[in-house]
Amino acid sequence: MATTANHFSLSLSTKQATTNSAISKPSFNYPYNYLPLVQKSKFISPYSLSWTSRNSFELNSGWVSASSAGRGQRSRICASSAQVMDQFATKTEPGVPTIVEVDLGDRSYPIYIGSGLLDKPELLQRHVHGKRVLVVTNETVAPLYLDKVVDALTRGNPNISVENVILRDGEKYKDMDTLMKVFDKAIESRLDRRCTFVALGGGVIGDMCGFAAAAFLRGVNFIQIPTTVMAQVDSSVGGKTGINHRLGKNLIGAFYQPQCVLVDTDTLNTLPDRELASGFAEVIKYGLIRDAEFFEWQEKNMQALMTRDPNALAYAIKRSCENKAEVVSLDEKESGLRATLNLGHTFGHAIETGFGYGQWFHGEAVAAGTVMAADLSYRLGWIDESIVKRIDSILKQAKLPTAPPDIMTVDMFKSVMAVDKKVADGLLRLILLKGPLGNCVFTGDFDRKALDDTLRAFCKS
Amino acid sequence: MATTANHFSLSLSTKQATTNSAISKPSFNYPYNYLPLVQKSKFISPYSLSWTSRNSFELNSGWVSASSAGRGQRSRICASSAQVMDQFATKTEPGVPTIVEVDLGDRSYPIYIGSGLLDKPELLQRHVHGKRVLVVTNETVAPLYLDKVVDALTRGNPNISVENVILRDGEKYKDMDTLMKVFDKAIESRLDRRCTFVALGGGVIGDMCGFAAAAFLRGVNFIQIPTTVMAQVDSSVGGKTGINHRLGKNLIGAFYQPQCVLVDTDTLNTLPDRELASGFAEVIKYGLIRDAEFFEWQEKNMQALMTRDPNALAYAIKRSCENKAEVVSLDEKESGLRATLNLGHTFGHAIETGFGYGQWFHGEAVAAGTVMAADLSYRLGWIDESIVKRIDSILKQAKLPTAPPDIMTVDMFKSVMAVDKKVADGLLRLILLKGPLGNCVFTGDFDRKALDDTLRAFCKS
Repeated sequence: MATTANHFSLSLSTKQATTNSAISKPSFNYPYNYLPLVQKSKFISPYSLSWTSRNSFELNSGWVSASSAGRGQRSRICASSAQVMDQFATKTEPGVPTIVEVDLGDRSYPIYIGSGLLDKPELLQRHVHGKRVLVVTNETVAPLYLDKVVDALTRGNPNISVENVILRDGEKYKDMDTLMKVFDKAIESRLDRRCTFVALGGGVIGDMCGFAAAAFLRGVNFIQIPTTVMAQVDSSVGGKTGINHRLGKNLIGAFYQPQCVLVDTDTLNTLPDRELASGFAEVIKYGLIRDAEFFEWQEKNMQALMTRDPNALAYAIKRSCENKAEVVSLDEKESGLRATLNLGHTFGHAIETGFGYGQWFHGEAVAAGTVMAADLSYRLGWIDESIVKRIDSILKQAKLPTAPPDIMTVDMFKSVMAVDKKVADGLLRLILLKGPLGNCVFTGDFDRKALDDTLRAFCKS
Repeated sequence: MATTANHFSLSLSTKQATTNSAISKPSFNYPYNYLPLVQKSKFISPYSLSWTSRNSFELNSGWVSASSAGRGQRSRICASSAQVMDQFATKTEPGVPTIVEVDLGDRSYPIYIGSGLLDKPELLQRHVHGKRVLVVTNETVAPLYLDKVVDALTRGNPNISVENVILRDGEKYKDMDTLMKVFDKAIESRLDRRCTFVALGGGVIGDMCGFAAAAFLRGVNFIQIPTTVMAQVDSSVGGKTGINHRLGKNLIGAFYQPQCVLVDTDTLNTLPDRELASGFAEVIKYGLIRDAEFFEWQEKNMQALMTRDPNALAYAIKRSCENKAEVVSLDEKESGLRATLNLGHTFGHAIETGFGYGQWFHGEAVAAGTVMAADLSYRLGWIDESIVKRIDSILKQAKLPTAPPDIMTVDMFKSVMAVDKKVADGLLRLILLKGPLGNCVFTGDFDRKALDDTLRAFCKS
């Protein structure tokens, strides 16, 4: 199949200025090497998104090209690392959140990011509906943070009663049987439509609690308190909820938005190193698909992130949430643009499903999948070799895998990828890199032989 | 607890003229004893709905009272039964649908009602998205209508491929295990987001297929082809989908609207008598809560309905759908008004759950529940004894139960009613009749002793 011209590669050249709804409040200064774009004439309406054919996606409004927009910003990248840290130092004040708004009309909500936020009950309590709360968490997180969250929910508010349900920890329990335990608890506790569900944990807990909230009595309010980097930078934001099926990831679920997302960065202090790194795979993703400056910042600051520098972490989380919020605001239900957030995920989901849920963390599978997507993009002639090398280098800095596990075969990839949610009328579509750093396409128009070559290059059989 | 004044009793005095979106196309003439109201000044905006307190519901706009509006219409009730049938005879033409629109903005959809509609492939095919369809049906309906529906989906349209999943028949299979069979089939068949689910059957099939469509890949299109009176007049319209939990009915689900509802009245030819009658419980409900003229029509025509007069059935279905469409358009997510469609259902759900799912048909339980709601309304002094008697009489004409089964105890009612979806912050709210025929309230403000008296009057222990 021939490749086709795809304007989407231009459209995603840099972070676009949209309405400022997805931009954080001024309490948080931008670091030296990121200047917000204010080209308001480049505002993207969600209505400008369209399908050119059944297989590829483009944006129709006038776009600033990667080269012209990129130059102006990159010219500012000249300050020293010390200056970065000085600027960070002015920003993190315990208990004072940075706020990123997710702009979805009457379903808009804030993401609160900061240290010590669980010690500020008023933040959480203003988003609790009704008098009854169900905290959904797991056996790992409960001993660490359940009491703290119950205190934040009830302090000075004796009318609130809090139930909890503690699930097994891990991706392999993200299934219908485990979900039923949430419904059982909610129903046995006689919760009604005015209750609030609270997801306390990583991405698995957030996805399951969110789907339970969407389906319990046909929908109750819920709040996300993500405690992993993965959940804080990605899965808790944007309303994708669901569970796995034995044949594929996240095949059953709902688009259902929370009342708020509360990211207390202190919860990362207890996160194991491997899970910390897993989350950075999604941080890196934002840089690759739409935010070259952020990627360059990560290349300079990955060591600070790996050593849990609180300012570096807070910045990476905030900037990731800004990217996610902007994309979700433009395309909540994944008509097109939002699919680009799945760079590396189709390969990654195949690894998670084929290798067995929970063998690798989600971010580890996404990291290997990102390398595979980059390899395919390079084989198609869509990106320079330098980008492939930079991706390999940054993932290695983050101690993330750069190839799938040996167990994966070409056939295993193909059979799982066939049930991917991005398949349309039988045709697999992928997010691939195209053009300078920070550009991608979402398309089914690519040479299938190149995909076969990529799969063979990464699989022993 | 003292009863409080509640303006809602006035608000639901008669069918209101709204925008004409919920009014059928002119191909269908109104019978002699029903004249459409055209008081456009009485348009109800959904924004006029509000909660006066946490426990009761009122409408704030100016309302025509039951007495003043009713007189004008009732003065026309003078024609003979023969005339009714003559007028009906002009309306039903095979293959020509009456259309009732459900007005929900960009989620609006038509209800097609008529004889021979499954012989008109174009009706169905215009609402199919993508090339692949999954028909969800049961072991009773499949032998009767599956081939016919597959033909309607594919005739002249060879690109469409149709899968099917045939579930066990009955309310007791409306559970998560059965729902998973739909997901299994969809995933094993590698259906993607551009597929269409088709619900072919009664209320159980419609509710389960709709919920599966809502959750599969976070939402795919679906079409309702209801084959029972219950589904045609009520459950297929309005987007309430879901499954039962062992502790209560419909506790897990979604609000999810179909692309269209296709009611081929010929499918009622194969419906057992007891199921036919079960559906009439919901028809009677519309009359009681908001459409006194329709109730009076039913009192005159119940024998025609019971003997399956096609014109009487078509009219009852159409007028029921108009009532349902109007209510759903005003209050899709059941903030208040829509709850009134649950007259008798809180008692009825307790019977279904306590007696065992499937022991009685849903409409049979609703019939007994309606008698109990009327009894409570009478004990509260909210309705005349004449209404209680008319309800008893019409239900007996329809061969429906007028009391719960002997197995039900006061405690069984209370324990199931405690997890009803209409409980708010622990307080049970009920739909009760108040005022002249055709008026109801949705309220938690009623004397609990009267409820106890009603339960004791209908239970042996």
